[in-house]
Amino acid sequence: QIDSARLWGSIHETAKFGGTAKGGVRRLTLSSEDKQVRDWFRKACEDAGLEVHVDALGSQFGLRKGRDMSKLPVGIGSHLDTQPTGGKYDGILGTLGALEVIRTLNDAGIETDAPICIVNWTNEEGSRFAPAMMASAAYVGDFTTDDILSRKDVEGTTVGQALDSIGYRGDKPVGFQKLGCFVELHIEQGPILEAEGKTIGVVDSGQGVLWYDGKISGFESHAGSTPMPLRRDALATLSEIVLAMEAIAKKHGPNAVGTIGEAVIANPSRNVIPGEIAFTMDCRSADGAIMDALDRDLRAAIAEIAARRKVEVKIDLVWRKPPTHFDPTLIAAVENAAKTLGYSSRRITSGAGHDACNLNTIMPAAMVFVPCKDGISHNELEDATQPDCAAGTNVLMHTVLAIAGV
Amino acid sequence: QIDSARLWGSIHETAKFGGTAKGGVRRLTLSSEDKQVRDWFRKACEDAGLEVHVDALGSQFGLRKGRDMSKLPVGIGSHLDTQPTGGKYDGILGTLGALEVIRTLNDAGIETDAPICIVNWTNEEGSRFAPAMMASAAYVGDFTTDDILSRKDVEGTTVGQALDSIGYRGDKPVGFQKLGCFVELHIEQGPILEAEGKTIGVVDSGQGVLWYDGKISGFESHAGSTPMPLRRDALATLSEIVLAMEAIAKKHGPNAVGTIGEAVIANPSRNVIPGEIAFTMDCRSADGAIMDALDRDLRAAIAEIAARRKVEVKIDLVWRKPPTHFDPTLIAAVENAAKTLGYSSRRITSGAGHDACNLNTIMPAAMVFVPCKDGISHNELEDATQPDCAAGTNVLMHTVLAIAGV
Ligand SMILES: NC(=O)NCCC(=O)O
Ligand SMILES: NC(=O)NCCC(=O)O
Repeated sequence: QIDSARLWGSIHETAKFGGTAKGGVRRLTLSSEDKQVRDWFRKACEDAGLEVHVDALGSQFGLRKGRDMSKLPVGIGSHLDTQPTGGKYDGILGTLGALEVIRTLNDAGIETDAPICIVNWTNEEGSRFAPAMMASAAYVGDFTTDDILSRKDVEGTTVGQALDSIGYRGDKPVGFQKLGCFVELHIEQGPILEAEGKTIGVVDSGQGVLWYDGKISGFESHAGSTPMPLRRDALATLSEIVLAMEAIAKKHGPNAVGTIGEAVIANPSRNVIPGEIAFTMDCRSADGAIMDALDRDLRAAIAEIAARRKVEVKIDLVWRKPPTHFDPTLIAAVENAAKTLGYSSRRITSGAGHDACNLNTIMPAAMVFVPCKDGISHNELEDATQPDCAAGTNVLMHTVLAIAGV
Repeated sequence: QIDSARLWGSIHETAKFGGTAKGGVRRLTLSSEDKQVRDWFRKACEDAGLEVHVDALGSQFGLRKGRDMSKLPVGIGSHLDTQPTGGKYDGILGTLGALEVIRTLNDAGIETDAPICIVNWTNEEGSRFAPAMMASAAYVGDFTTDDILSRKDVEGTTVGQALDSIGYRGDKPVGFQKLGCFVELHIEQGPILEAEGKTIGVVDSGQGVLWYDGKISGFESHAGSTPMPLRRDALATLSEIVLAMEAIAKKHGPNAVGTIGEAVIANPSRNVIPGEIAFTMDCRSADGAIMDALDRDLRAAIAEIAARRKVEVKIDLVWRKPPTHFDPTLIAAVENAAKTLGYSSRRITSGAGHDACNLNTIMPAAMVFVPCKDGISHNELEDATQPDCAAGTNVLMHTVLAIAGV
């Protein structure tokens, strides 16, 4: 059994790095707050006797030796960055839970066969730099390191510059730390476990993601003197796109979602009809065929709206992550750990993307979910209970022990 | 006859203050570019022998003495500020046209009975600070000077601070310069004169304006894991409001318009459902009863949308300007000047608000319109021809001579 109070203490101690008045955390990747939590994490890893390395994209790796160093390490961990209006658990539970597993094994003097490596992946959130799960995507070869280093935030700062500014461009090449498998603990970020009174979600799959950048070019003109029928209003166009996306996602059933999270009017003025808007789109489904249908329906709807309103709408697909199907053996190991520990559980699909989804493309991976209050995440009010967090961490530890061998 | 080439030269000489790559002008009120054009204008007034004063809100007044100084001056002029994506003519034609009238009278050695006062009103556009036509509204007593001085732009800078920063907080109290009447020359900013092949618009009325500040409070949550039916999406709410406003304006016929020009998502992120949006609304009609109906319909639509989507929407009416009915005697004077000079003309309603609309509430006022290309305004592509600008300025001069007496 892990030390529930110690885990809870770590979560609340680090929540001060970027802590907000509403009780959430604003810790954008590679910000000064991110540097603070990274420094804390490095020291905690060193104190736990781990050998710590940082790769060229800033991901932190803490290695605990195993009896048999010819075996690849069992990877566990998650991320410590948050959304602009993020909570105290998303990513953090999985990273500090991994640390707690190490501390517990140390205290109990347990040596494993295979080594264990705990990881804090850079920019899981994708809020400051696209795509999300950026560093683990580079780790599995979906993007080159140079490509990722050149990605820019809205201010034009590149990932490379941001890494340098907080001193976290590591000396190890991306991929230097080989892993045999990866298990990630996370809050569910959805309402199912809580609603069904289950403690553990055994994650067997994850939704695929489509991310687009969009730009609407209408025509700026006078709000008072331009008759309604002569307008080429970029905001009215966006409004139709937002509602079309909502309708399309609903049409494809419970297994699809669509969101426009960013929309910026160029040179806004109260008495000017908006002429240009940049926006983003995020569509997801756990079913590849539905993802294709979302893409098709969305493009058709946008083309119709643009033609009717006589405006130009450009859509760029900037990221496509297919649905994830986690490794059956690892899924069974998680399920078994939950059963052994006496926790109620159910199989579940992840609505969010996770580093484990990326790692699953080159190694066996799996995830452990615990409930979060009202399914709320990406919100400062995100909440989870201490017993649930401890239960998830126990399941993580027992899964690791089963895989690594004692 | 005014000097068409000189007028055209002034327009293009001053267009460099804030000139944009696309051939427009970006000269927000009380910005450094506004200071440049104000300095130019003051010097031009002094060179034309005018006595120049600046009031506490920065409006510039240039007085040309009349034979009978017991008579109140005939006011002419407009504004030199522009929209963020503004053109070379909106406001500028009326201000530099007034200057051209003075220069022409000087060259011809014509003395008028009543004095003539040319005016550059501060912040007509209303883009940086609300309301529009701010200084002329204070002049007629719709707002106190202190109230206006405390208005803030999006950066939190007050009108008072902005005036001080460019050295244009004048030493004269607002209203120090009494005027007997006011005539404003302006581009139409709409498509009617051009479509009908008319040179002069004799403006007999102006639309009323409703300006609102709005705020939507939904709930931020995860774009991937929040099912569509559980969302309280601020952007989807805004989208419905935008389309409802469009439908309501159309329903009330050709005599109504409605625009949402600004909308800002708080803490935007690609994978977060927008939780909070601040936005503005601009509704207009030349008919007071339709204005009331627009307000009523809009509030009802917003209440319905907010309740259905379980979000909070707050609406503040920040400005209400009733429709304008210009002075019949002055309207006739403008019409007569156009006829005498042999220009085709028609009566017309102003879609935009103008300083003359404010002045009309305490003195006789009227306006002269000239065509602009495709009715485009509040756009960098705004355009007008040299002969039309000259024709409007000639009509302005002959109207002034008829009122002031020679
Ligand atoms: N777990 C999580 O919130 N990931 C952020 C990436 C995404 O799914 O949008
Ligand atoms: N003439 C003009 O464009 N005025 C700006 C104020 C408004 O009508 O919105």
